[in-house]
Amino acid sequence: MSKDLPLLVSTPPERRDAARNRRALLDAAAELMGGCGVDALTMDAVAAKAGVGKGTVFRRFGSREGLMASLLNHREEEWQAGVISGPPPLGPGAPPMERLLAFGASRLRLHLDQGALIEAAGRTWGENYAVLGFASMHVRLLLGQLGVTGNLHYLATALIAPLSLPVLRQQIEHGGMSEEQVFAGWSDLVRRVVRDDD
Amino acid sequence: MSKDLPLLVSTPPERRDAARNRRALLDAAAELMGGCGVDALTMDAVAAKAGVGKGTVFRRFGSREGLMASLLNHREEEWQAGVISGPPPLGPGAPPMERLLAFGASRLRLHLDQGALIEAAGRTWGENYAVLGFASMHVRLLLGQLGVTGNLHYLATALIAPLSLPVLRQQIEHGGMSEEQVFAGWSDLVRRVVRDDD
Repeated sequence: MSKDLPLLVSTPPERRDAARNRRALLDAAAELMGGCGVDALTMDAVAAKAGVGKGTVFRRFGSREGLMASLLNHREEEWQAGVISGPPPLGPGAPPMERLLAFGASRLRLHLDQGALIEAAGRTWGENYAVLGFASMHVRLLLGQLGVTGNLHYLATALIAPLSLPVLRQQIEHGGMSEEQVFAGWSDLVRRVVRDDD
Repeated sequence: MSKDLPLLVSTPPERRDAARNRRALLDAAAELMGGCGVDALTMDAVAAKAGVGKGTVFRRFGSREGLMASLLNHREEEWQAGVISGPPPLGPGAPPMERLLAFGASRLRLHLDQGALIEAAGRTWGENYAVLGFASMHVRLLLGQLGVTGNLHYLATALIAPLSLPVLRQQIEHGGMSEEQVFAGWSDLVRRVVRDDD
């Protein structure tokens, strides 16, 4: 499925200058996106913006889809760094229920903010198992800290599933829910899963 | 998104002979799939199997993707008929919790059985809001019958989300869960959502 994309956990180490070039191209791509949206994101435009040849962009990212996946990976890495060592409540230091709710709010935000990019990158990104694996491990650990018993691996994937972009689109665009209602609904779901067994 | 596909609720009424021809082509396609898998499902092969010209298959389904979507719609219609008027516990007559668990088991089975077809049809099928809308309405009604309070629309979409093919693939192929563990996990999730408020 996702074997053609640079997966987060399988990204090979880069030489320092290669990493710097890659970062410059990603910055140019992010600026293009910010100004003109995902349609403006072409290999030509990124090359022109970064002042390199188009061949360089192709060598680095393989395709427009590869470039978009790299942009998404970059945002994902920043988000993961926030979970691992950023400020609470997303990062360490807050009680586990606060961290879990902050997790949901930040995934919701990330997916809606990057919706156009996620859809343009194709379904391969949505099924990026390296990304899902990290989120699932994080939620599993928090559920354990909250004293939830049972198949925590299953429950973690089930709590993450409604935060995926297609489900959010269904709820907001087709179901007429506001983002606030979606987050309130997810928080309610979490509380139902976590409350003490009776 | 899905505007190019024949959506379940928007299928226009067909003349009786057109419906019969369509049914014969779908039967031919289903037989091909059953014997040789989704790769064998080409417009040429379906035309040969049904004894019609290739042009007829194209006129009827537009493209190979359209044919696959029609096959999925056909299975979906059969499943919906089972929910509306089939035998319990999926159909009417069983207590709502039994119906809800039968709903989950049958969606799990349907998605895993049709996995190759769903993936070949592209993400448009997976985001088929007409299909999601029917399932969501059904689960919402059952949650109401079970006395669940809160945003039942949200909870219904959240219970359906982990039954989608990408999540099932993550749990079974990447997470090493068995189908039995997945269904047990989903049943546990449902019981957590449904249990009396304390």
